[in-house]
Amino acid sequence: MTREQELCNVCGAGPIVYHRIYSNERLCRACFIKTFEKRVVKTIAKYQMLRRDDRIAVAVSGGKDSLSLLHVLYKIEKKFPDARLFAVTIDEGIEGYRTEAVRNAVDYASRLGVEIYVYSFEELFGFGLEELMRTPEYRGLGLQPCSVCGVLRRKAINYAARKLGATVIATAHTLDDIVQTYMMNIMRGDLTRLEIGLRGDGSAAIPRVAPFRLTPEREVVFYAYLIGIPFQSHACPNASLSMRDMIRRFLAEYDERYPGSLYAALRSFEKIQVKQERQLKSCRYCGEPTNKDICRACELLDSLKLNTAVVSAV
Amino acid sequence: MTREQELCNVCGAGPIVYHRIYSNERLCRACFIKTFEKRVVKTIAKYQMLRRDDRIAVAVSGGKDSLSLLHVLYKIEKKFPDARLFAVTIDEGIEGYRTEAVRNAVDYASRLGVEIYVYSFEELFGFGLEELMRTPEYRGLGLQPCSVCGVLRRKAINYAARKLGATVIATAHTLDDIVQTYMMNIMRGDLTRLEIGLRGDGSAAIPRVAPFRLTPEREVVFYAYLIGIPFQSHACPNASLSMRDMIRRFLAEYDERYPGSLYAALRSFEKIQVKQERQLKSCRYCGEPTNKDICRACELLDSLKLNTAVVSAV
Repeated sequence: MTREQELCNVCGAGPIVYHRIYSNERLCRACFIKTFEKRVVKTIAKYQMLRRDDRIAVAVSGGKDSLSLLHVLYKIEKKFPDARLFAVTIDEGIEGYRTEAVRNAVDYASRLGVEIYVYSFEELFGFGLEELMRTPEYRGLGLQPCSVCGVLRRKAINYAARKLGATVIATAHTLDDIVQTYMMNIMRGDLTRLEIGLRGDGSAAIPRVAPFRLTPEREVVFYAYLIGIPFQSHACPNASLSMRDMIRRFLAEYDERYPGSLYAALRSFEKIQVKQERQLKSCRYCGEPTNKDICRACELLDSLKLNTAVVSAV
Repeated sequence: MTREQELCNVCGAGPIVYHRIYSNERLCRACFIKTFEKRVVKTIAKYQMLRRDDRIAVAVSGGKDSLSLLHVLYKIEKKFPDARLFAVTIDEGIEGYRTEAVRNAVDYASRLGVEIYVYSFEELFGFGLEELMRTPEYRGLGLQPCSVCGVLRRKAINYAARKLGATVIATAHTLDDIVQTYMMNIMRGDLTRLEIGLRGDGSAAIPRVAPFRLTPEREVVFYAYLIGIPFQSHACPNASLSMRDMIRRFLAEYDERYPGSLYAALRSFEKIQVKQERQLKSCRYCGEPTNKDICRACELLDSLKLNTAVVSAV
C-alpha cells in the first residue's frame, strides 16, 4: 500500500476518517461533511420536500439525529431568505432521559440562533408519560409504552406545528428508519401508507418530510460526532424489544453483510403501488388522514380519557 | 383446567398433538392431517393452481417437504382421473446428501405407485456439482455453490418437465419459502417477479405452482413426521450463510414472537403491484422468461462452459 492510498479518495489531500463501503469512498473529515450535506440538499430536491417559502418546523427530540438535522437544515436554509426555520420539542415527561434531551435541544438551538418551542404532554394532555403509565386506563390497554408515546408525540408535534403556522414538518428519520417502517407495514399486512417521509398528496395534515431519507443512520451518527453534537448519556428507560427493534436488528445485520441493501430495499418500496388503493379519510376529531373514521391517536386519547381540549383548540 | 380442554378443539375427541397458535386450534392427529390436506385443496382452488386435465410434474428433492407434497397431491389427484401425476428428481451429484435423498425419493414414489424420473447434472450438463466446483470456470465466478446449484436445478427441472410433456410443475415451497423469496427480491431491489409460486400469466415457461403457499414450514415438518416420511440424516455440505438464511432466521423469529406475521406479509405482497411494470422477455436460448436477452441460467451455463446440448435439445 502506498502513501497516497491512505488519503481521501475525493480530495486526495486529507487523512481518511470514514469509509463508505457501498460506494467505496474513503473520506477525510471535510469531504465527509461536504458530501453528507450535499446529499441532504439532493434528497430535498429529488423528492421536492421543501419549498422556497416554507415555514419549517423541525421536530427535535434532542437526540443526535434530530440535532444533526437541525444543524444541516440551518446551514441549507440560510440561503433561502423567504423560508423560516424553527424547532419544536416535545417533553413527554420521562425523568432523566427526556430532561437531558430537552436541555440539549434548547442549548443547541440557541447556539445556532434558531427559535425553539417546547411543549409538554403535561400541558397538552394533562399528564406526563410516566404519570399516565400509572393510570388504570393505561394499564387496561395492555400496550407497550413506546406505542402510546409515539402516537401522543406525533399528535403533539402536529398540534405545535399548526399552532406555530408551519407549512411542513421535518423529521430526522434516516434511511434505516424509513426502510424499517416500510418493512413493519409489510409484516403487519398494512400497506395504506406508502409515502413515508415524503411531502405526500396534499391531504389535510401538515406534511412530514424526512431529509435524511437517503442517509444511513451510521452516517448521521458520525456526522453528529464530527460537528460536536452532544450525545445523550441516558437511554429511554421504557425501550423494549418491539417489532421495530427486531426489524432494525435484522436490517442492520443484513446491510452489514450485503452493503447497499438498505438502498435496494428503498428502491423496491418506491416502485410499489397497491392494487385497489383505499382512499384515506380525515379523522372526525382532528382531521389527520386515517383509514377509519377516527384516527388511532384520537381513539387512544379517548380510551386513556385524556384531556384533549388543548390540542383540539387550534 | 378440566379434562375436556385437553382434547382436540375441532372434533372434541382425540388427544391434542398440535397447537396452531395463530388460529388457536388445538388438534388431534386426525384433525391435523385433515385440516392440513384441506388447506392444500383450498390453496390450489383459490389460486387456480391446477386444472382437471393437467400433467403435473412434482419436483421432488427427496426431502421431507417435497415428499409430503407428493403424498398430498397423490391423495388429491386420485379424485381427478383426467389428471396425471409424476415425480421428477434431480441428482446434482453431491455425495452422501443427495445420494440418500434420491434413494428416499425413489423408494417413496414407488410405495405410492407414482412414476418417478431421475435426471442428473452429469447427464444434462456433463458435470456433477462437486466436479463442477473444482473447475477453474466455477472458481472464477466467485459465487456460492447454492447460487449455481439453484439455477442449474431449476433449468434441469424445466428440461425434464418439458421432455415428459408436463403442463405444470408443482414445487414444495412453503409459506415461509414464498415470503422469504418476496423479501429477498425486496432487499435486492428486484421486483420483476411478483407471482411467486402462482400459475402466472401464460408465458413461455411451464408454470410453477406451490400448493404449500399457505402452509407454514413447521406444519409441513409435522405432517411429514405424522405420515411417516423418512427424514434425511445428511445435511447439504455446501449450505452456507446465504442471503436467504439471514431472511429465514429473521422471519422465523418474528413470526414466533408475532404469530400470523408470515400470513400478514404474504397478504402485503399479494396487494402489491409495481409502477411501470417491465415486460418480461423470453430468453434467446431457452425461452424462459427473463428481463434481459439471455436468462441468468443460460448466462451461467455459458460462463461455466457447460455442455448444454442435452438441455437445449427438447
